[in-house]
Amino acid sequence: MDAMKWWGWGREDISFTHEDKPALGPFVKRELGVDVTSVASRPVAFDQLKIPEPSLAPALRGVLEEAVGGDRVSTEPLDRVLHARGKSLRDLVRHRRGDIGRLPDVVIRPGTEEEIEAILRAALDSDAVVIPFGGGTSISGSLEASVSERRTVISVDLGRLDRVLSVDATSRLARVQAGVFGPSLEEQLNAQGWTLGHFPDSFAHSTLGGWIATRSSGMQSDRYGDIADLTRGLRVVTPAGLLLTRPVPSTSTGPSVREMVLGSEGRLGIITEATVHVRRVPACRTILGYLFPGWAESLAAMRDIAAGEVMPSVTRVSDPNETRFSFATRKDPSMLDRVKSKALEAYLGRRDFDREAMCLGFIGYEGSERHVRAQRKLVGRIVRRHGGLCIGAGPGTLYDQKKFDTPYIRDYLLDCGAFGDVSETAAPWSALPTLYGNVVAAARGAFETLGVRGYLMCHLSHSYHAGACLYFTFTFEPSGRGDSLEEYDTIKSAIQQTFVDSGATLSHHHGVGTEHASWLEQDISPPGVVLVRSLFDGLDPGANLNPGKIV
Amino acid sequence: MDAMKWWGWGREDISFTHEDKPALGPFVKRELGVDVTSVASRPVAFDQLKIPEPSLAPALRGVLEEAVGGDRVSTEPLDRVLHARGKSLRDLVRHRRGDIGRLPDVVIRPGTEEEIEAILRAALDSDAVVIPFGGGTSISGSLEASVSERRTVISVDLGRLDRVLSVDATSRLARVQAGVFGPSLEEQLNAQGWTLGHFPDSFAHSTLGGWIATRSSGMQSDRYGDIADLTRGLRVVTPAGLLLTRPVPSTSTGPSVREMVLGSEGRLGIITEATVHVRRVPACRTILGYLFPGWAESLAAMRDIAAGEVMPSVTRVSDPNETRFSFATRKDPSMLDRVKSKALEAYLGRRDFDREAMCLGFIGYEGSERHVRAQRKLVGRIVRRHGGLCIGAGPGTLYDQKKFDTPYIRDYLLDCGAFGDVSETAAPWSALPTLYGNVVAAARGAFETLGVRGYLMCHLSHSYHAGACLYFTFTFEPSGRGDSLEEYDTIKSAIQQTFVDSGATLSHHHGVGTEHASWLEQDISPPGVVLVRSLFDGLDPGANLNPGKIV
Repeated sequence: MDAMKWWGWGREDISFTHEDKPALGPFVKRELGVDVTSVASRPVAFDQLKIPEPSLAPALRGVLEEAVGGDRVSTEPLDRVLHARGKSLRDLVRHRRGDIGRLPDVVIRPGTEEEIEAILRAALDSDAVVIPFGGGTSISGSLEASVSERRTVISVDLGRLDRVLSVDATSRLARVQAGVFGPSLEEQLNAQGWTLGHFPDSFAHSTLGGWIATRSSGMQSDRYGDIADLTRGLRVVTPAGLLLTRPVPSTSTGPSVREMVLGSEGRLGIITEATVHVRRVPACRTILGYLFPGWAESLAAMRDIAAGEVMPSVTRVSDPNETRFSFATRKDPSMLDRVKSKALEAYLGRRDFDREAMCLGFIGYEGSERHVRAQRKLVGRIVRRHGGLCIGAGPGTLYDQKKFDTPYIRDYLLDCGAFGDVSETAAPWSALPTLYGNVVAAARGAFETLGVRGYLMCHLSHSYHAGACLYFTFTFEPSGRGDSLEEYDTIKSAIQQTFVDSGATLSHHHGVGTEHASWLEQDISPPGVVLVRSLFDGLDPGANLNPGKIV
Repeated sequence: MDAMKWWGWGREDISFTHEDKPALGPFVKRELGVDVTSVASRPVAFDQLKIPEPSLAPALRGVLEEAVGGDRVSTEPLDRVLHARGKSLRDLVRHRRGDIGRLPDVVIRPGTEEEIEAILRAALDSDAVVIPFGGGTSISGSLEASVSERRTVISVDLGRLDRVLSVDATSRLARVQAGVFGPSLEEQLNAQGWTLGHFPDSFAHSTLGGWIATRSSGMQSDRYGDIADLTRGLRVVTPAGLLLTRPVPSTSTGPSVREMVLGSEGRLGIITEATVHVRRVPACRTILGYLFPGWAESLAAMRDIAAGEVMPSVTRVSDPNETRFSFATRKDPSMLDRVKSKALEAYLGRRDFDREAMCLGFIGYEGSERHVRAQRKLVGRIVRRHGGLCIGAGPGTLYDQKKFDTPYIRDYLLDCGAFGDVSETAAPWSALPTLYGNVVAAARGAFETLGVRGYLMCHLSHSYHAGACLYFTFTFEPSGRGDSLEEYDTIKSAIQQTFVDSGATLSHHHGVGTEHASWLEQDISPPGVVLVRSLFDGLDPGANLNPGKIV
């Protein structure tokens, strides 16, 4: 895997641009008052960063080098900066400013579980801090050491544990090393005819171990399940020894240890391997576009689809604001108007049809051809019942191709002088309309308080029996009157607080880290916090493992 | 709910008998050498039990009576005996012998969460032990106080918290009090057109809170999910206050607190309420019988059914031994021979068909008529591919009617002088054939060691993507040469040890309690035990809540 940009998302040779999207510049100008053609800000040059000397006692360095080999123990400045944080908006802004925080003192790259055991032993013996590092895409602050941390901080990069070890074709289970990146994992599985089917937005730059440590969800999780559903067996190097959970399909061995590791964000140990569900690469796979007359109809349709007799792989629908944004980022924004379809013409031309309220959805299907055909038909009926219309595979194909590019937009906006970020949550179906309204009002209120222009948009990203995930994106141009990160906090906090005040959760799939920690007690209640803290204190009494995260 | 028999399973007016099952007597005689027509043993009379005086300080009694009212605080001998244990084979045998163990000192029946909070406060203030009691059907020893317990033991009977509080029809979620029994729960939900769809063998005598506390599974869990999947929001009275988890469909708030309460067997607090998935009562519901030429073909068919494009509600198939037993317990055991079906005649008459190897399966379907029709067709194809044959709805209807009667057999066998019990587990599909063979060999070995005649049978009871639950039943006549419970331990332990030695789990849905505690560390590994213990120690530092269970 190529390293990420130290100051931003993804590969050096990829960036988002408005140049091939004629409608985007005018859209951003109109909504945010931002001129996309002039660069407002750039990251400082790397050689201007003030990199402090690492605090690494020669004895500890010696033990670490003995454990993994000298060339796997790095105190190089770029390595340390790359492993200092994840990719939250706060991380991007601070790195771009040259505020690099508490760097890890050393980055170490083990290649085996035994080496990881040796590293952890050495760290505990010298009371050092260990922070496991997968792809570094956390947007919840799960990777950063506390500025007040005086102990040696070791970033353990799992990137060399990158192999699918075996596939049990009978059980449809694969043993996979935790450091493997999404694309390599799928490539190795696909070569044997299998897929994990887990495609978070960060897919290209994140790892299996990271997904497990943060309880991630992917774009096809409606069919394949969240990572919590996909993960069965686990191997975790902990201060109390090697933690093993068996890859059994279900068990009643008391409180689920598997579910304690899921979402533990490095606080319990280093995940080295997981046994995960795999499925045969489907014979047929398609994502269709749908239009709905409004947000209420969109939610109702998705809710009925989740009632249990159909099994789509993707259920996603954007609110009117995100639908408008979506059309503005097309290379051919007038596409919809030029679709040669009488049905679409009639649909858009209906007297009561309000293009401003229109919502664009995507529903995906996977499996045998017969299965896909049957599912499409069943979903089509439900969609029509809610006034929706299928607009075919074109928009879905486009979505499918562009789906991993979205995170690049934040760097682009920062170059333009604007902030963009996301907050996502989940709630019961009945709570979604009010939750949505409350978040819109909260964001608007925050924009007004700050006197900034902002844009908020949303999509439903995952459907479940009893509710769904709402994924909000907000953008604004900081006022320039104070610290722009404080203005960001005002908006982000208003949205997060609205989540927990509206019966929703602080995050559906981004984890807690430090960004969301202040809402944890409101979400899981004070005794819930006692339980989580008991786990960490019980297994890691010296607080050597990624301290300060979650609680 | 009527009280259970103090010495056995279920209602006083229901018992199992061979009298309407002409083939059963000869079957039991042949396989176990036991004569079912003569009563070998009966429970001692209740008035012969030696009931010790309760240890309940007047001050504590006063506080408890103030909390719930005097008539809700009982020290009656029958109440104390009924709340002393669950219904494991060991519990039945000891109770029948008059060995009633460490009775609770007092049984208390709160009617509200506030009363439960007051009870727990009082218990903590006086360092008493609290054991939550639902239906008392645990077969894992989760309800019994330690014989060495010197503190006052309070059994908190949740039976008065028996209401469905509300149904959120939009979210398909119901708020339900934890003490409700299965039949009442379904009745209350059905009246509004809903069902939980959770039908464990103990359904008639167990409660929602008990299902959650032990991670139970039901007969239709293939469709509805295990109780862990059905349960979203929880309210739990704990020593650290009221624990609340939000009824959100998915969340990434660190290690799952919801999954810590599931399976906690009373060690974290008293579950008062849960918000659970409900579904519309299906328009159509049917269970069909299938025959398979052998066990290997049966497993392979179930495995293919679980591949993801069909959604049966029940997948169950018996091994040849259980198939034979099943036919022996029919009121008309020759039924199969008299079925007027050319297909069945041809099937059974095939030259290579071995009736001794034949396996009887049940597959259930629920939903709209169209859905059920489509599912039956798809499943039929898979079954045929593995040499199976559908034998229609008759056997399935019979199974559906008798499904909750099975637990009565143990009392019947005890009357005949024989022991019968169950051990169930789950493992990946690839491990099932070897696991099965190992258990058969282990049981046979144990029977031989003891010099007793025994019978072992098995069914696959739940299918998952990556594996299944195997449910073993074993019966034997104790030798009479020593303590029959020690002989039972020899067999039960041989089977349990084989589970963990074969990559399976100590239990799929019966919990840990005290019966399975000695295999916990082998199953979840030593650090897993540290984690579980940390939860209990962290939330309940005085070990007042059902101490000694699980770990």
